[in-house]
Amino acid sequence: MSKFWSDMAKRCTPYIPGEQINRANVIKLNTNENPYGPSPKVIQAIQKESEQTLNLYPSPTTDKLREVIAALNSLSKENVFVGNGSDEVLAFSFMAFFDSNKAIRYPAISYSFYPVYAKLFGIPAEEIALQDDFTIPIEDFYQSDGGVIFPNPNAPTSIYMEIDTVKKILDNNPEQVVIVDEAYIDFAAESAVSLINSYENLLVIQTMSKSRSLAGLRVGFALGHPNLIEGLTRIKDSVNSYTVDRLAIAGAEAAMADVSYFNETTEKIIRTREWTIVEMEKRGFTVLPSQTNFIFATHPNKDAGELYTALKEKDILIRYFKVPMIDNHVRVTIGTDEQMAQFFKMLDTIL
Amino acid sequence: MSKFWSDMAKRCTPYIPGEQINRANVIKLNTNENPYGPSPKVIQAIQKESEQTLNLYPSPTTDKLREVIAALNSLSKENVFVGNGSDEVLAFSFMAFFDSNKAIRYPAISYSFYPVYAKLFGIPAEEIALQDDFTIPIEDFYQSDGGVIFPNPNAPTSIYMEIDTVKKILDNNPEQVVIVDEAYIDFAAESAVSLINSYENLLVIQTMSKSRSLAGLRVGFALGHPNLIEGLTRIKDSVNSYTVDRLAIAGAEAAMADVSYFNETTEKIIRTREWTIVEMEKRGFTVLPSQTNFIFATHPNKDAGELYTALKEKDILIRYFKVPMIDNHVRVTIGTDEQMAQFFKMLDTIL
Repeated sequence: MSKFWSDMAKRCTPYIPGEQINRANVIKLNTNENPYGPSPKVIQAIQKESEQTLNLYPSPTTDKLREVIAALNSLSKENVFVGNGSDEVLAFSFMAFFDSNKAIRYPAISYSFYPVYAKLFGIPAEEIALQDDFTIPIEDFYQSDGGVIFPNPNAPTSIYMEIDTVKKILDNNPEQVVIVDEAYIDFAAESAVSLINSYENLLVIQTMSKSRSLAGLRVGFALGHPNLIEGLTRIKDSVNSYTVDRLAIAGAEAAMADVSYFNETTEKIIRTREWTIVEMEKRGFTVLPSQTNFIFATHPNKDAGELYTALKEKDILIRYFKVPMIDNHVRVTIGTDEQMAQFFKMLDTIL
Repeated sequence: MSKFWSDMAKRCTPYIPGEQINRANVIKLNTNENPYGPSPKVIQAIQKESEQTLNLYPSPTTDKLREVIAALNSLSKENVFVGNGSDEVLAFSFMAFFDSNKAIRYPAISYSFYPVYAKLFGIPAEEIALQDDFTIPIEDFYQSDGGVIFPNPNAPTSIYMEIDTVKKILDNNPEQVVIVDEAYIDFAAESAVSLINSYENLLVIQTMSKSRSLAGLRVGFALGHPNLIEGLTRIKDSVNSYTVDRLAIAGAEAAMADVSYFNETTEKIIRTREWTIVEMEKRGFTVLPSQTNFIFATHPNKDAGELYTALKEKDILIRYFKVPMIDNHVRVTIGTDEQMAQFFKMLDTIL
């Protein structure tokens, strides 16, 4: 702690991201990255853009990328906000829609960045405990004071909430913004995007880091009523006019446009996930019903923390959260079939 | 204004960046971009990186880039913070070092993003008027309540403050953070970086957007005592773990490493600047003494606003600020010799 720090710098509790170990032989099943590289068209677009005008500022309004995203979601550009990863979009959302005098609600077990934002911006928060089956208790999110945010599917539980249920939360918070954080939605049944034209209080946030294989490029986006998008834009333009660089814009446009590559890799991951769940259950794990690119599992006789450590020693990284209720679960990102085969090979030497 | 906006979203007054017109025949002398592209080694590094692991998150700590920047400044990695353009570094600095109960000071004529940050984060500000010769009144910055920030050279005046004078401001604010915003320092005499080991309250902020020709890549950095760097890191890690993407990191490393390309292009711009000033004076302009990659000038019989409009009609963009004291000045970015020749050709048809 330094005497030069502001109250904000003193009070915040920074987020700790998953380990980034870049040794070639490590199998990274710990940060829900996509095991497949991005579409070759993304790389072409980036290489082309790199030879153009890097000396000039990017578009502060990212119009073309917003149009591409809008078209894929049957929306218009005015419904789309683009930011530096969905983390930045989330941070701007906390700034744009939540206040220091009204408590917001989120699940006690969910993305661990939410309490970080709340603390940073001095927003009171009510953490709603999950039910025994790890699902979200819907009615506890009704009539919130200051707004609601939850991931769908939830992380790290991997459990998906039906759209009709999301609707109930929206119906019961008509004066508050409800943020549905859909980082993993492309591995799930259906996005809440279809509700945007009916609910002016709905903000849907998605990312290109998972299903578009672009964690390294930092592009996320929000979809919602133009009033909400304008609120986000006001915050962005008060922080940094251009948070997405020229190469990221070019790569993201190409990634969104290559729908067949996206479908192919997403389906591959879903197939590997289903196979992985069967294999985990064969070994005695209880696996929560996953609609994400990871699974959340517990073993009756093997401590999750020990499992994490033992796998790490064998160059396989998974994630383990020392948090009440889930401290005997491990989160395992779905890799390629080959990576999962190696995972099971190592797992079998441990069990 | 929407009922869903927070107090912050309601009260902020977003920054308006210079026009980004991407028509090929427009000569952009309005946003202080570098007329030369980045080093060819930057493009090679980006293209190579684009073929590696874009599906994996970037380094949250950008260690290697920080080491490269530190080495060039005879500092250590712990003295360096890297962000998404110097705008993001500035925003994080306002969050990390300034408070809502203590007024900060900056020159009334300076980077117009400072009041935007102050309003966004609710930080009271004392705007200190420039002297008649457009220099900063040093003693008015002594004994500030909450901290000091100023650009050096100042923008849009282009005037440089000697390091001994910067020292006086530091000496007279021992308990406050003094931020020297050196966006244009590579076109000037000397950076305040040499003072970092003597002043734990000094933060120097620089950018790769100007002298490194990378406005399109979004990389800025801060140099200071490890305590200050830690404060910035706490804020960043509470907003977005990775704000600089893999391609930007790779490009920035290559840009910093290619010192000879940097020297060559910087010297070219300085030569063009000196020639431009002579030509402006020949035409009756009064030009402030510039140590930047732009000039700030006024003409006795030609209104600055009209000049801006007339040049725009001829596809030459310059910048004009409708702000008391400087509303009869134009700011002209230094382009290539060819661009400046075209600028003078068009100017002569107007004068």
